[in-house]
Amino acid sequence: MNRSIDIFDTTLRDGTQGEKVAFSAEDKLRIARQLDAFGINYIEGGWPGSNPRDMEFFELAADASFEHARIVAFGSTCRAGASPEEDRNLRLLVEAGTSVVCIFGKSWLLHVEKALQITAGQNLEIIRDSVGFLKQHGKEVIYDAEHFFDGYKSDPEYALSTLKAAEEAGADTVVLCDTNGGTLPHEISEIVAEVHKRVDIPVGIHAHNDCELGVANAMAAVRSGCTHVQGTVNGYGERCGNTNLCSLIPNLQLKQDYECIPDEKLEELTALSRFVSELANLNPDIRQPYVGRSAFAHKGGIHVSAVMKNEDTYEHVPPSRVGNSRRVLVSDLSGRSNISYKAEQLGIKLDKYGDNVSEIVQKLKELENKGYQFEAAEASFELLVKRMTGVWEEFFKLEGFRIIVEKNVSGSSRTEATLRIKVNDQAEHCAAEGNGPVHALDKALRKALHKFYPEISNMHLNDYKVRVLNEKDGTGADVRVLIDSAEHGKSWGTVGVSHNIIDASWQALTDSFGYYLAQKQKSIQQKEVI
Amino acid sequence: MNRSIDIFDTTLRDGTQGEKVAFSAEDKLRIARQLDAFGINYIEGGWPGSNPRDMEFFELAADASFEHARIVAFGSTCRAGASPEEDRNLRLLVEAGTSVVCIFGKSWLLHVEKALQITAGQNLEIIRDSVGFLKQHGKEVIYDAEHFFDGYKSDPEYALSTLKAAEEAGADTVVLCDTNGGTLPHEISEIVAEVHKRVDIPVGIHAHNDCELGVANAMAAVRSGCTHVQGTVNGYGERCGNTNLCSLIPNLQLKQDYECIPDEKLEELTALSRFVSELANLNPDIRQPYVGRSAFAHKGGIHVSAVMKNEDTYEHVPPSRVGNSRRVLVSDLSGRSNISYKAEQLGIKLDKYGDNVSEIVQKLKELENKGYQFEAAEASFELLVKRMTGVWEEFFKLEGFRIIVEKNVSGSSRTEATLRIKVNDQAEHCAAEGNGPVHALDKALRKALHKFYPEISNMHLNDYKVRVLNEKDGTGADVRVLIDSAEHGKSWGTVGVSHNIIDASWQALTDSFGYYLAQKQKSIQQKEVI
Repeated sequence: MNRSIDIFDTTLRDGTQGEKVAFSAEDKLRIARQLDAFGINYIEGGWPGSNPRDMEFFELAADASFEHARIVAFGSTCRAGASPEEDRNLRLLVEAGTSVVCIFGKSWLLHVEKALQITAGQNLEIIRDSVGFLKQHGKEVIYDAEHFFDGYKSDPEYALSTLKAAEEAGADTVVLCDTNGGTLPHEISEIVAEVHKRVDIPVGIHAHNDCELGVANAMAAVRSGCTHVQGTVNGYGERCGNTNLCSLIPNLQLKQDYECIPDEKLEELTALSRFVSELANLNPDIRQPYVGRSAFAHKGGIHVSAVMKNEDTYEHVPPSRVGNSRRVLVSDLSGRSNISYKAEQLGIKLDKYGDNVSEIVQKLKELENKGYQFEAAEASFELLVKRMTGVWEEFFKLEGFRIIVEKNVSGSSRTEATLRIKVNDQAEHCAAEGNGPVHALDKALRKALHKFYPEISNMHLNDYKVRVLNEKDGTGADVRVLIDSAEHGKSWGTVGVSHNIIDASWQALTDSFGYYLAQKQKSIQQKEVI
Repeated sequence: MNRSIDIFDTTLRDGTQGEKVAFSAEDKLRIARQLDAFGINYIEGGWPGSNPRDMEFFELAADASFEHARIVAFGSTCRAGASPEEDRNLRLLVEAGTSVVCIFGKSWLLHVEKALQITAGQNLEIIRDSVGFLKQHGKEVIYDAEHFFDGYKSDPEYALSTLKAAEEAGADTVVLCDTNGGTLPHEISEIVAEVHKRVDIPVGIHAHNDCELGVANAMAAVRSGCTHVQGTVNGYGERCGNTNLCSLIPNLQLKQDYECIPDEKLEELTALSRFVSELANLNPDIRQPYVGRSAFAHKGGIHVSAVMKNEDTYEHVPPSRVGNSRRVLVSDLSGRSNISYKAEQLGIKLDKYGDNVSEIVQKLKELENKGYQFEAAEASFELLVKRMTGVWEEFFKLEGFRIIVEKNVSGSSRTEATLRIKVNDQAEHCAAEGNGPVHALDKALRKALHKFYPEISNMHLNDYKVRVLNEKDGTGADVRVLIDSAEHGKSWGTVGVSHNIIDASWQALTDSFGYYLAQKQKSIQQKEVI
């Protein structure tokens, strides 16, 4: 029988404490909907008293309906010396209109005395008063014991007495927080076991990643009896982040007999992770366990040849189980197996031990030394192989282009591109304005190509990335441009490298258009044969 | 008494199996020198038989001298059916000329039968033969038991017999590898304890991060008696990476009584991490424990105000202990404490509860919504505050600029910028060529400013970063430019945002020059007063 674990997501609250993480109220609602659909039990939405954005979220959430998840408002215990009824923070928590409230209080005498500047007894009193007040208002109350492990290490009896205060006042769950993230797994195991001897309500864990142990600490706590785990999608959070739910959930559910979410939902894990990184406008971490682009990517030649024979040999779980997929990387470390495998996927037959493969490996090595990267630019890799094997014809020839960016004294700027190309000896001369130089060039090229290849209007650029390679060279550095293009859901990546961003963009742009036109041509030829 | 742990760094071998990680032979030598100076015991340099770059490294390393570390050559056991003397891989290992050799062999019958396609007995034989051969050549031999934990789970006796084969043939250390990274800490603890009952030589651990447990698994193994740990700087490595030594070492040495490196060297940890990410040409992970830019960064208003009162309250170790430093982040989540703290650092007195602070918070919120980020652009933040408080005068006025990028049929491109500025009603008109449009503009502006402010030639641009904000808008998207400038080791960051990369770069460039000139002016005035 599977033991059930309550997952409490705090991406929208503790997650936004992370550097560079920010969500609008609408973003928060979209994420909450995804978390609900994924099967998360509790979604902490924010701190109503702390900023207007969080207030707005609770208003939006009150009008929304959730299938499964309960929305949680977060706040602190009341101030000492005033009654809870008069406390603005507690009042706003009630007004947030959620059925569940999570409040944090102090467990560590250092904090009680230095930060709150009250006595040990007063602290117990505000815990009891705050929990009691929220219970009177019919809330499910989760009590977060801030700095619990540090507090326990400095005075175990006092730390335990704060939990008892919350329990006696009616808290539904107490959560042990490793707020500074400094506790080690064996300490977590020992202390959680001690807590379970004294506390009779469900106990939870809230861990941080300051020792790179955020996931391990939550797992140690669960093995010692915790049934409630707080964490965030992608581990976003203050400093080094929180327990990463994208790793914790499969660790508990695929490798041990715990149930966190409905089993079939696990396949949506990768999509959830990328959705949240997209709304946070952060590049996904390619190395992220389970959900990263590299999590099931094989680069070493030996691994590739073994994984082709039997996938268990180098994969700890099937990538599809978490919605991810296997990738074979092409690089100058690649063995012949990688190149042959990739070429085969492209429908190009290479003699595995012939000259073609060696030449391609050699060329890749040269280009990678210059800063090219084909791992995310598979269309450019295909064109490279086709050019080297002589099966590629260019769709147009550049005669020249000129881009002008002007800024005048009023501060407004204007960008224009002019372009001349030839297709089968027919010349075309176009001009276009754009937001910036690459945009103007892209628009001019589209205009020029459209006359010969009207299907070009069906594809669009999805994503445009610029990476400065040798950053220390300042504005004179080389840059790599990666372009991701798409037509009706099908997408492809291309790459360009140059010390001139315009040149690098031009390479990636022309590869993208060329790849698309070749695909179109192939599908027309196939139709004609049928 | 501190228990001593042998740290075995494999950044230069397993690290380079990571996606996007590549080092030249010279890079490898520079990293090896840093690892040596840091106090690492073993540095695995590469696999001599697998690629020419690794061969070249061992040639360079043979001529270099290391104070402390031993360089290790990596390879596999010999092929079945041939004698070790005839095995090319083993021969190259001997020829690499290192005093230590690390070879890996199979522990898991699945691999023995499916990948190597030999019998269980033959596998034991090649382990014995290979270790024996290397010992005959006077090498210290470290035997890596690949897939040890998976092998143990499927057939414990067979897995143990492979270790015994290595031990009996004279191996100095056996290392248990969690090659697929799928093992959990409690399993590691149990299995390592069993191994110690049967093996009498030192036992090591080699863990991967596929479950986000690479550090936790190594720590569990050490607690169960392992005295040798393999890992990489920043956790670089195949798929999700290896045990991250930048977290493991302080976890063992600052929080438990193990000694991995000389204690005073720990302060170089952050510098080592950044040096390696720089040579790998990867952006450092800001959230990385201990060494990341965010590891001791405080964003939440409550945390900031508490940490100002007592640093233990929100820091698990003193940042200086690992060579990192505390940062206070300014964002629209910031409390008044953050803004006041920052302004004070800038020498600007703000009334903590006055209008100034509210206006600045409001303005920050607007700018952050547009994509500005001041966390890495403290000079732009200073100029923003000074502009809003009316204590800023611009050093020059832009009259206009024009940039032309031309590419002709021969494929070569040319970039030119012309610029008009005014300083105290005196006009200057300059032109410059550059690698790309921003480089040309930077050069033209320097030329123009030099006439009025010759000190400008002492500063240079250190780093230029471009981030596409709303990537889905393709080449028409907004971009954020971050520029890092420096003069004699002192550096400052500036930011610009626009849908035009030239405009965004212009903002960051002019802030950078303006900030520098203001600093110079201040120091001249101070000198005059003295």
